[in-house]
Amino acid sequence: MNNALILRTLGLVLLCEAAAMLPSLGIALYLHEHAYLAFVISVIVIGLIGAALILIQVHSNDVGYREGFVIATAGWLFMALLGSLPFILSGAIPGLVNAFFETMSGFTTTGASVLTDVESLPKSILFWRSITHWLGGMGVIVLTLALIPSLKIAGMKLFRAEVPGPTKSKVLPRVAQTSRELYKLYVIITVAELVALKIAGLSWFDSFIQTFGTVATGGFSNYNASIGAFANPAVHYIIIFFMFICGMNFAFHFLALHGDFRSYLKDPETRLYMLITTGACLLIGANLIASLSYSGEEALRQSAFQTVSILTTTGYATADYTNWPFLSQAVIFLLMFIGGCAGSTSGGMKNVRYLIMFKTASRQIARLSHPKAVIPVRLGRNVIPEELVESVQTFFFLYFAILMGCTLVIAAMGFDLLSSLTAVAACLGNIGPGFGAVGPMSNFAAIPDPGKILLALCMLVGRLEIYTVLVVLSVRFWRS
Amino acid sequence: MNNALILRTLGLVLLCEAAAMLPSLGIALYLHEHAYLAFVISVIVIGLIGAALILIQVHSNDVGYREGFVIATAGWLFMALLGSLPFILSGAIPGLVNAFFETMSGFTTTGASVLTDVESLPKSILFWRSITHWLGGMGVIVLTLALIPSLKIAGMKLFRAEVPGPTKSKVLPRVAQTSRELYKLYVIITVAELVALKIAGLSWFDSFIQTFGTVATGGFSNYNASIGAFANPAVHYIIIFFMFICGMNFAFHFLALHGDFRSYLKDPETRLYMLITTGACLLIGANLIASLSYSGEEALRQSAFQTVSILTTTGYATADYTNWPFLSQAVIFLLMFIGGCAGSTSGGMKNVRYLIMFKTASRQIARLSHPKAVIPVRLGRNVIPEELVESVQTFFFLYFAILMGCTLVIAAMGFDLLSSLTAVAACLGNIGPGFGAVGPMSNFAAIPDPGKILLALCMLVGRLEIYTVLVVLSVRFWRS
Repeated sequence: MNNALILRTLGLVLLCEAAAMLPSLGIALYLHEHAYLAFVISVIVIGLIGAALILIQVHSNDVGYREGFVIATAGWLFMALLGSLPFILSGAIPGLVNAFFETMSGFTTTGASVLTDVESLPKSILFWRSITHWLGGMGVIVLTLALIPSLKIAGMKLFRAEVPGPTKSKVLPRVAQTSRELYKLYVIITVAELVALKIAGLSWFDSFIQTFGTVATGGFSNYNASIGAFANPAVHYIIIFFMFICGMNFAFHFLALHGDFRSYLKDPETRLYMLITTGACLLIGANLIASLSYSGEEALRQSAFQTVSILTTTGYATADYTNWPFLSQAVIFLLMFIGGCAGSTSGGMKNVRYLIMFKTASRQIARLSHPKAVIPVRLGRNVIPEELVESVQTFFFLYFAILMGCTLVIAAMGFDLLSSLTAVAACLGNIGPGFGAVGPMSNFAAIPDPGKILLALCMLVGRLEIYTVLVVLSVRFWRS
Repeated sequence: MNNALILRTLGLVLLCEAAAMLPSLGIALYLHEHAYLAFVISVIVIGLIGAALILIQVHSNDVGYREGFVIATAGWLFMALLGSLPFILSGAIPGLVNAFFETMSGFTTTGASVLTDVESLPKSILFWRSITHWLGGMGVIVLTLALIPSLKIAGMKLFRAEVPGPTKSKVLPRVAQTSRELYKLYVIITVAELVALKIAGLSWFDSFIQTFGTVATGGFSNYNASIGAFANPAVHYIIIFFMFICGMNFAFHFLALHGDFRSYLKDPETRLYMLITTGACLLIGANLIASLSYSGEEALRQSAFQTVSILTTTGYATADYTNWPFLSQAVIFLLMFIGGCAGSTSGGMKNVRYLIMFKTASRQIARLSHPKAVIPVRLGRNVIPEELVESVQTFFFLYFAILMGCTLVIAAMGFDLLSSLTAVAACLGNIGPGFGAVGPMSNFAAIPDPGKILLALCMLVGRLEIYTVLVVLSVRFWRS
């Protein structure tokens, strides 16, 4: 294990975090908010720790997947721990655990909140809270590039070709090069939404906050009513569009920017994602109209917003789906376990895993008819290696095992079955809201501290695609 | 496909069904119940159909797994369709769909009921209703022996050695021989419980009904309050014991009868089953005491009864767990997805599948640390073949895919999320009761007919370990 390099990388990450606090400091100074002091101290503390770490002498640039797992896990953890400093020092979020939960929720682009009245917070604090989403989204992009190939998760086809196998020291430069391309894309999408929301009539501040929450598929808003605070349907449509875009594999946006728009439709995962989105929108829309909850355009808009928000694991809301008819609720519940596409900023199980599992199931049934037939699992033109099939199926099992185990713990704290189950599902899938006590118009404030810590760890485990954290926690990993 | 042999076997099955109605006919005549006519007509109709089918000329005794899949699926379906005749003809269960649901629930040993007042039914009808459980339990034993090896489900170690691979025509005689041994065992356990309940003070009739419900892990009772109708704790303990026994792999009971008691503890699945039972009992017991729901012995008894009843997928109740504190509810909910052991009469996912999935997950994580290591998945001393791992993981996925899909349909009929989800889980897992509208003190009467048909099919799919039905429904199966 190249410890020096791990620490140095973490130092670099912390320096970025300190730098990312500067805009919020600027806002605090500009608006004469008391929180400015909290930002000054935080920048100094985090900056000093980061500086100390990057001074560590690195003797070798050898870095493999094992280092990558540690960097990702420790990186997210330290970002969340130190990133909560402004909340704690300013007193905006009372309690260390609350601040940690909120920051982890930000960096993992979950969007679950312990705040009962966000509108009362200083703007600089709200800005930092949303910046954590945006940074988290960036982090996910590198994560996908650097670690996903080793996790055998598929997707990211464009880049997988460029990223070599588990041979050491060649990984980093290629990842760096491709990340730069993706960062550019991320910034372009961010600017596009920012401008679109401004044109739709939002203030620059509101535009920034909702944009950060959208492109990272995060879900933090500066309004208690989430996106429901904006009456203009255009705002809803803009956010639906960008949530949808950011739930897709960024590789195809990259291709589209270079003129190849057909690759969206050629990709089996993107097709499934579009199919699920359309199906769920229409089903919920019809159900809302039939139950007289809304009519015409509003029914479809509310349906589309909530569908895309939950499927992409954003978690924004324009309506309280827990009051919708049961079929619509059941569809939303189901979407919570699907998620967006691999290679996007969304969380959850991801469409590609379902594709692989459905194809494996169909192969399994075919084998029972013809035991001697050798039938490969295909995704488009590619044959899926058997080890990838197993990895995906194991991921599915671990997802539910963690979900069930943590549900017991939350239920033990006095929450009903549906609230407990969906609180964990919403955190593990990086979604944000669930059902019952943690519905889209409620929050996580009522959960006791140990529960909040557990849920924050669920966010981390979900964000890092489960394996990353579990492998770092395993004994075997540390046996050289 | 050996159609003649399939039809002839179905004929044999129907003749057994007609014969199994005779005791109920006897009771009807003895008690001068009007239902006697319904039984006379049913016996004649089913007997004639059966007789016609066994007259079919069979040219070849070649029988493989494909024929087995068809026999199992068609067998259960026809048993349920024709077995509902006494309910329909006597008017005891109004409506064809209700009667079909109740009979399928019986034969699949599910125990879910559409009856709001069982106590008002004629005794002969109640006896037939419970006989369906007992026959279903027998059916499961042959199913396990004859088909499970081909489904690669593990367990049944003792007998798997005797049952050869997918070579034709050798399967049947060995299965027949081993089935006879298991039937003996099934009868011995039945008689033992019958006598135990009689000694505990039940009438012979009550003893028969509860015994059939227990040994088949079914759950039909002749009382509206289920086993809660019996105040004597000894009755509860007897039923707990026999439910527990019947949730274990019958192969080990067979060995125990021949003096080998240690094989229970040597089997990893049985150990896990004991561990889960003990853990859940203690957890719920402590939770019930802490919440002042019950005290001392009663807390542990209520906990043990409900735990064992749900884990073994029996579905009997002595208390309404939907009123228990949330932790206890969450544990019961979790147990609904586990089930008993392979080779028992219980349904659900089965402990052995969880063992294999946990071991595969641990292997997967180890592989990420040491990508080049070749690590087999082991169960006790046996190495689990890779195809078995995939079959088990695919089973898990299909289980949840079917669960989610059917939940949408039930929710569309106006049932809340938790009721819809657990109604499907209770039928797919052959358990019986769920939560909410389908709790242990409620029933399935309120579900509209299309929903009842869907749930009855879920029972069938679950009882036949999913693959059996899906393979028969696949296009590829019928080609060539």
